[in-house]
Amino acid sequence: MTKGRIEAFSDGVIAIIITIMVLELKVPEGRDLAMLVPLLPVFLSYVLSFVNVGLYWNNHHHMFHAVRHVGGWVLWANLHLLFWLSLMPFATGLMGENHFAPVTVALYAVDLAMCAIAYTLLVFALLAEHGRDSDFARAIGSDRKGKISLACYVAAIPLAFVQPLISLVLMAVVAAIWVVPDRRFARVAERG
Amino acid sequence: MTKGRIEAFSDGVIAIIITIMVLELKVPEGRDLAMLVPLLPVFLSYVLSFVNVGLYWNNHHHMFHAVRHVGGWVLWANLHLLFWLSLMPFATGLMGENHFAPVTVALYAVDLAMCAIAYTLLVFALLAEHGRDSDFARAIGSDRKGKISLACYVAAIPLAFVQPLISLVLMAVVAAIWVVPDRRFARVAERG
Amino acid sequence: MTKGRIEAFSDGVIAIIITIMVLELKVPEGRDLAMLVPLLPVFLSYVLSFVNVGLYWNNHHHMFHAVRHVGGWVLWANLHLLFWLSLMPFATGLMGENHFAPVTVALYAVDLAMCAIAYTLLVFALLAEHGRDSDFARAIGSDRKGKISLACYVAAIPLAFVQPLISLVLMAVVAAIWVVPDRRFARVAERG
Amino acid sequence: MTKGRIEAFSDGVIAIIITIMVLELKVPEGRDLAMLVPLLPVFLSYVLSFVNVGLYWNNHHHMFHAVRHVGGWVLWANLHLLFWLSLMPFATGLMGENHFAPVTVALYAVDLAMCAIAYTLLVFALLAEHGRDSDFARAIGSDRKGKISLACYVAAIPLAFVQPLISLVLMAVVAAIWVVPDRRFARVAERG
Repeated sequence: MTKGRIEAFSDGVIAIIITIMVLELKVPEGRDLAMLVPLLPVFLSYVLSFVNVGLYWNNHHHMFHAVRHVGGWVLWANLHLLFWLSLMPFATGLMGENHFAPVTVALYAVDLAMCAIAYTLLVFALLAEHGRDSDFARAIGSDRKGKISLACYVAAIPLAFVQPLISLVLMAVVAAIWVVPDRRFARVAERG
Repeated sequence: MTKGRIEAFSDGVIAIIITIMVLELKVPEGRDLAMLVPLLPVFLSYVLSFVNVGLYWNNHHHMFHAVRHVGGWVLWANLHLLFWLSLMPFATGLMGENHFAPVTVALYAVDLAMCAIAYTLLVFALLAEHGRDSDFARAIGSDRKGKISLACYVAAIPLAFVQPLISLVLMAVVAAIWVVPDRRFARVAERG
Repeated sequence: MTKGRIEAFSDGVIAIIITIMVLELKVPEGRDLAMLVPLLPVFLSYVLSFVNVGLYWNNHHHMFHAVRHVGGWVLWANLHLLFWLSLMPFATGLMGENHFAPVTVALYAVDLAMCAIAYTLLVFALLAEHGRDSDFARAIGSDRKGKISLACYVAAIPLAFVQPLISLVLMAVVAAIWVVPDRRFARVAERG
Repeated sequence: MTKGRIEAFSDGVIAIIITIMVLELKVPEGRDLAMLVPLLPVFLSYVLSFVNVGLYWNNHHHMFHAVRHVGGWVLWANLHLLFWLSLMPFATGLMGENHFAPVTVALYAVDLAMCAIAYTLLVFALLAEHGRDSDFARAIGSDRKGKISLACYVAAIPLAFVQPLISLVLMAVVAAIWVVPDRRFARVAERG
């Protein structure tokens, strides 16, 4: 019951975040394709953010599949994650409208890193709730993929000042890795 | 469970897409009906898009009725469909605010074609999940209606440069055809 | 199941409509209460629309409580209702930002009348689905309240050109009448 | 059933409120961190409002856990609460964009006070529904925390004209107190 409502609220917030980002694509006036050229950086930022927010939904969805009960701190850890996700439309617009200026790419990476940290804290809150010896804990395992992602996001912050493209490629690669569905929870779901 | 959450998330995103499109209708200042005349192209685009997004929800809804289980790729195929649907408010505004300029009508048709392709990919992902010999596969059948629609959307792209009105009528006719509910899944639902 | 998803989608769309209307309240700059004075017409329009959209949700909610099954046309009748409801933020902004100019009050009444007609069509579609001899048909009864409301909205259109205040008071009175919960479906729910 | 749909609708509206607030963070143009400085008041207002709206969702969620049945007035009491919550994005933008000018901080406190009053009225409507001798009534108890919060919000209104910072700190402290989950309903949930 409680779990269902957290899922429903999170789905609602993530659905709105992923959709209002498109409002950053301001409708241009014109009669040929050239009018779309200035929109390209915003569009590319939108694609990257759509995939990122989509994979947070995806992982959230898979993880809650294995969740058995939720306590008070889980709700706040979840809201904390939603807070950093809610800044994605701003970070996306900032990066796109300023044509991937180093500081904006770095700030985008900061937001992704904060999302990853918030997700890790949510995992900790759920682990505390379920115990070290639960199916949930076994499903999480060492969370190597999550740790590598966080390391990449943190690395992308200073790299943006060297060359923004390196940061962007790094963040895109991390997103691509996550597109492959997480087998861990699938295994628990099969057993459960 | 998993199926329910995909439906809920898709419903959320589609509900937001269909509703934020109305934000393209900027409130004019004035004291007589003439102030609404410049809004007519945007309004007509809105009606066409409302019907189109509505029928995607409708078909999505009917199809998932027959779905028995979902795997990892289904989630991404579904997100891919939502991505192209999420560009509908932009494509709608582009076409309406530029008074159906050929290139904007063509781009609108491109977005509808991408939605149709994404929907077909989602059907493939679900077919792979259920097997060729499932109730789901039987319900889908040859998907003649889907193939004709896609062909019409693709045809509407070059036709927009000949005469935008032809493209618009073509897209409106396709929408009208789909308003008639899909009997295929209804039959499965009755049997199931 | 199908009923649940129509309810969920309608709830989503209505929730977004009722919430994005607040975006018409543009944040003013200033250091005293006088800055809020120009916002008063928009605010009053917002209150009227919030109550109106809220009562559509309320009635929709009560009516679907008595619904036993839904067919294909119900989905489209429902989408048709959502279409006219989706124009409420525009009609609200139009009326508020033009300080209740007669034509804008008339257009607001037109939208309310279209919502009432769409709701009636939805009731017809559901009656056709359930049959004249069903609990649902008995719950609907003669729908006297619905007919009176529609008559008032239609009357409010020409009255706006005589004196907008008369139309506004009429629409506010209709809203107030509906705030009292509909006993008809409550009775069926108790029996069912 | 009815309870489920009120929860779903409330979750939807609250999810939209908490997310569209971020639209007040207008994307600046620039190439260094200095461009973010003018956004700081808006960002801080956003954080405070995100926490406040989040705790309303949280408390709403915990309270409805103990709810057994809902009557007609509960729906309107709930809509009344959603109305004042829906003004939070406006109040947040007003306070942030006017750099915490006294009158805007006072208005923000007025909105929080109205939310607290609306929440209390919702509790009363639910108490009337469940009876003084119900598990729900026992779970609510004397609602000391709610009364103290309301007193603080009301006190924050005049204090804003003395020194806005005092009001802001007071409202932040109240928010911090609520972040600790409400044990009352947890106890009922365990027993139930």
